Amino acid sequence: MPLRGEDGLVAWLRQRTGGEGSLLGDDGAVLAGRREVVVTVDQQIEGVHFASGLDPSVVARRLLRVNLSDLAAMGAVPREAFLALAAPPGFPHRRFFVALLGEARRFGVRLAGGDLSRAAAVSASLTLLGERVRGGRWLRRGQARPGDRLWLGGTLGESALGCQLVARGAKWARGLVAIPRAAGVPPELRRAARRAVRRHLLPEPQLLLSRWLAARRRVAAIDVSDGLARDLHRLCRASGVGAVLEADVLPVARGSDALSRALHQDWRALALSGGEDYVLLFTLPASAAPPDEFGCVAVGRVTRGPAIQMRTGGAMRPLRDMGFDHLAGGGRRAPVKRRAIARRPGRGRAARRPPRR
Amino acid sequence: MPLRGEDGLVAWLRQRTGGEGSLLGDDGAVLAGRREVVVTVDQQIEGVHFASGLDPSVVARRLLRVNLSDLAAMGAVPREAFLALAAPPGFPHRRFFVALLGEARRFGVRLAGGDLSRAAAVSASLTLLGERVRGGRWLRRGQARPGDRLWLGGTLGESALGCQLVARGAKWARGLVAIPRAAGVPPELRRAARRAVRRHLLPEPQLLLSRWLAARRRVAAIDVSDGLARDLHRLCRASGVGAVLEADVLPVARGSDALSRALHQDWRALALSGGEDYVLLFTLPASAAPPDEFGCVAVGRVTRGPAIQMRTGGAMRPLRDMGFDHLAGGGRRAPVKRRAIARRPGRGRAARRPPRR
Repeated sequence: MPLRGEDGLVAWLRQRTGGEGSLLGDDGAVLAGRREVVVTVDQQIEGVHFASGLDPSVVARRLLRVNLSDLAAMGAVPREAFLALAAPPGFPHRRFFVALLGEARRFGVRLAGGDLSRAAAVSASLTLLGERVRGGRWLRRGQARPGDRLWLGGTLGESALGCQLVARGAKWARGLVAIPRAAGVPPELRRAARRAVRRHLLPEPQLLLSRWLAARRRVAAIDVSDGLARDLHRLCRASGVGAVLEADVLPVARGSDALSRALHQDWRALALSGGEDYVLLFTLPASAAPPDEFGCVAVGRVTRGPAIQMRTGGAMRPLRDMGFDHLAGGGRRAPVKRRAIARRPGRGRAARRPPRR
Repeated sequence: MPLRGEDGLVAWLRQRTGGEGSLLGDDGAVLAGRREVVVTVDQQIEGVHFASGLDPSVVARRLLRVNLSDLAAMGAVPREAFLALAAPPGFPHRRFFVALLGEARRFGVRLAGGDLSRAAAVSASLTLLGERVRGGRWLRRGQARPGDRLWLGGTLGESALGCQLVARGAKWARGLVAIPRAAGVPPELRRAARRAVRRHLLPEPQLLLSRWLAARRRVAAIDVSDGLARDLHRLCRASGVGAVLEADVLPVARGSDALSRALHQDWRALALSGGEDYVLLFTLPASAAPPDEFGCVAVGRVTRGPAIQMRTGGAMRPLRDMGFDHLAGGGRRAPVKRRAIARRPGRGRAARRPPRR
């Protein structure tokens, strides 16, 4: 039996390890012991997660932030980081590390070890260790119950738009985003476009919201990294529940809707399967709601399942398990268990580009 | 100030983090807390650590073994592993994971999480967590004292010979090593050549010796990964001592000497700076010696320093800090702090090869 897609491989591995972890269920692995720690691993690969030529300081910051989002999904307080970095001769290590250390300080992380190597293209992977919030609980995917409300910690689709703009030539230089004329962004949307690129390159991990959630009694949580549809499916699968998603209330960033139209994109499709939003998707009992200051939006409810449905203008239809699959080839639809996967345009395109030597 | 070479970068980082860890001193980072754990990170990059086309099951096993050698150097019992794997479309993930899980079982390691991605070339990094030997101590680099004896846990240079043979076309197929006629190995040395390739591809981490050492009172230890000369310099620097290395007693694997001559290599040079030997280099008080069954060899003594010298046939001369530098470009000598670095022929050659797409 071939292993079909990322989730297929993960399911196969789960059978063979019996363990828990980001490869195997949640966003991180909880290590039991006298001192409980959670461990997450994430990587940034040139030509896949970012385009060749991206400022190494942005690569470093992105690497840490994306990884921190996994810790946020687990309700963990970040502590130590371990870096494996491979880069071509001439790579400005100092620039990379100054940015990484600065960002680590900001988030309370200590760079505690790692490994350096040469390589033809930049690849960086970071392992983060986190501790449980004092008096709190780990957040897990499998805690949703029928009747719970479904919440999102922030807006969707903006990162995918930023990714498209990078593919159309948007550049990060010295902290500023430049959108070339050829990108086809009308003047009144340039500000939203710059915000989208920034959001794509430097997502903001929702650590404060995570702390609040970890102090609740019963929460299921996941961070939206591979698209809302796919990550909602994962959460429901882990909890053995279904869901009804209210498509008409999905939170959209200021200007993203208009920007989508200008780029000939369907905002709703980007919101559902664009990916790399790095906001928390979580469930709470219907009696609970997060404080307004977090800007969370209730986007549906948990049902007995197993159906996962989406309501648009009163009409209900099944929500497909679509989104980014890290093992699917760029440019073609890859079959996975049960459902077809939509290709993620931005990343798919980047992945076909040869790495810079 | 440019950062010169790997050790230059590490020194610069140490100033800025004040922490401990493999990037920053020892082979692993000890995380204090209620439960002490040690964390190591290591990576295998296609075209750098192994040639394109190497059987993915060997890549997986090599990745784990090289990382376990770091834990051995810390006196840690391996526990959990976290994998970041990036590979091109079509990569046989199942073959990779079957080998990784089998090898993990053998060494008592649990694969507890990770991250998967596409990439143009294979890059894999592994984070390992280990616990302290019950009733034992962590092994550190900085514990050597003048008067101690210097020991090696195994033979040198054989892995470097294996690396050269791989560069000359030696292949691993279904557990067997094939040496092509063009490699220039005389028939009577083919067996030694196959052993060298196997040793290079699948080094044996010295975990049992490590356990014995961790139960001693005072030990300094490092694993020889970047060549004896470089790693001895690192150990002496961390301990603030010097050393006299007895070149005439350096342990050589059966047939390695003859094989070196057949390949027009200087065995002594490979022993000093070939690298990837993955044996433990350690110091013990003069009154102590490891049990014979470990096959360790006393190769010198620790002095007040700071001179690090080598005695050959009665003549004493300074031992240069030469060996493999992960940040030096392939094919050219790169300046680093204090001393020039000898290029490692095998790996340098592989690094210039473009990654397979």
